[in-house]
Amino acid sequence: MTAPAPDFYDPAAFMEALVAAGLVIPTPVQGGWGRGPVFEDLLQRFDAHVMREAADDGATELTFPPIIARTMIESLGYLDNFPQLVGSIHSFFGKEAQARELSQRVHDGQRWEDLLDITESMLLPAACYPVYPVFSGLLPEGGRLVTVKNWCYRHEPSAEPTRLQSFRMREFIRVGRPDEVEAWRDAWLHRGLALLRGLGLPVESDVANDPFFGRAGKMMAVSQREQRLKFEIVVPVIAADRPTAICSFNWHQEHFSGKFGIRAAGGETAHTACLGFGLERVTLALLKHHGLDPAAWPADVRQALWP
Amino acid sequence: MTAPAPDFYDPAAFMEALVAAGLVIPTPVQGGWGRGPVFEDLLQRFDAHVMREAADDGATELTFPPIIARTMIESLGYLDNFPQLVGSIHSFFGKEAQARELSQRVHDGQRWEDLLDITESMLLPAACYPVYPVFSGLLPEGGRLVTVKNWCYRHEPSAEPTRLQSFRMREFIRVGRPDEVEAWRDAWLHRGLALLRGLGLPVESDVANDPFFGRAGKMMAVSQREQRLKFEIVVPVIAADRPTAICSFNWHQEHFSGKFGIRAAGGETAHTACLGFGLERVTLALLKHHGLDPAAWPADVRQALWP
Repeated sequence: MTAPAPDFYDPAAFMEALVAAGLVIPTPVQGGWGRGPVFEDLLQRFDAHVMREAADDGATELTFPPIIARTMIESLGYLDNFPQLVGSIHSFFGKEAQARELSQRVHDGQRWEDLLDITESMLLPAACYPVYPVFSGLLPEGGRLVTVKNWCYRHEPSAEPTRLQSFRMREFIRVGRPDEVEAWRDAWLHRGLALLRGLGLPVESDVANDPFFGRAGKMMAVSQREQRLKFEIVVPVIAADRPTAICSFNWHQEHFSGKFGIRAAGGETAHTACLGFGLERVTLALLKHHGLDPAAWPADVRQALWP
Repeated sequence: MTAPAPDFYDPAAFMEALVAAGLVIPTPVQGGWGRGPVFEDLLQRFDAHVMREAADDGATELTFPPIIARTMIESLGYLDNFPQLVGSIHSFFGKEAQARELSQRVHDGQRWEDLLDITESMLLPAACYPVYPVFSGLLPEGGRLVTVKNWCYRHEPSAEPTRLQSFRMREFIRVGRPDEVEAWRDAWLHRGLALLRGLGLPVESDVANDPFFGRAGKMMAVSQREQRLKFEIVVPVIAADRPTAICSFNWHQEHFSGKFGIRAAGGETAHTACLGFGLERVTLALLKHHGLDPAAWPADVRQALWP
């Protein structure tokens, strides 16, 4: 492989190349772009590779829509911690006269959102959220393991190609006794690193924190790091010195299990943990490190993804 | 097959049976339920069956997120015609003090949505919408064909299992000369009927109309029917006398091509048409007509879906 060009990590040049190659389809929404057939094929191949690696674990696969009950988001503290990221869904509940006014304002280029009202739903911010209520009650011996692949929404518009408002995560969610859950998280951290290194990505893992809002959030972030509750696997994609997180591991302890009354087989409150691969980000990392033409990727990477 | 029970078309009993069989996972949102592994496998198998049938057409597959630019929805007249179905995405843009107030109101059980503001996006109401801008300009000889499978949102909460707020559509979008587009639509109408009858579903096709809002909408619906712009393929799923649409065909004439400057190879304004399979609805129709255990489905249906 020839040495990377000096602008190897220029995000604007990367985006331009992705669009020129038909991998990314521009839309008017920053971080809301479309995926061309080759991009989407790579994304699905990586997901299938993860699922083959995890096949013996026997995870139950559930599928949820990209919306979630407003009451869930309220009760989980998401509006306390990440208000800047939420997507609240509003619709029109009026009669004829209000509908005419709405239509008129749209045509006049005036603002019209005060004619809407909230619905019972918000956009799903994390693929695993709808899973926890499913676990309510007493778990079987050994706990449970579920996997989901869902569209997530975060309101953080950006022209930077790895920063999406709407993206897919493949997540695994483990629930059980605290020691079972922590051991599972530790084992997957090693497995995730090996899986991504096997695809030729120069990944590293590190303690991390969620993007909590504001001053109080800074303390939450410090506490999360001190307790080592969140790890990320990172790889340079758009900057050599600010690597991009492509996989993250969260140990929630009793955060979800307390709220939904999830008890381990012995009766004590269970722990939960999850890990998620950012499917678009992994795809972008592969394209950045192996080039925009998958036919020319290294033989071992191709063998893993085209088995 | 034994005769259907007297309550064969009781929607509440159907939903209860779907949940008991683990096919549907209840959530607090009406029409926002989760899909168990068997349901999702059937849905993906039907989609793969459609794609095999259409393989020789050489459609280009594009993938878009479940959000779309607000400006697109405004300019396409969706707020004039279907305001009652929209999902407008709102988020929080405030500073510390407003965030504290938001958090306090959430904890006090008070309404908090006036602390949000609109974003640049809305939920995607139809899988084909993001495709039309991609066609802008002069088409190649013979026009173009694209396929998408996207999550759509419609705000119509209901306990009835075929009425979903968030669901997937497999769509094909054809753009070209008016005669090419109409012939393609007619051919697919026959093909869609044959494909669904081949899966043992007692389907019929009929002229249809979209659910336009209000009194003015009634006239739009009559006009759409008179011009035979919309057809549906329907099958009884939750009522014998009110069959459910599981596939629909829309001939938009110049509605999209005029807005996005799409011209046929000869230079004249192109026409567009689309057809979409409602993937959850087809899956529910198969479960209703062949029973909740796919292992016991008729041999020819299994052969088609498990090739």
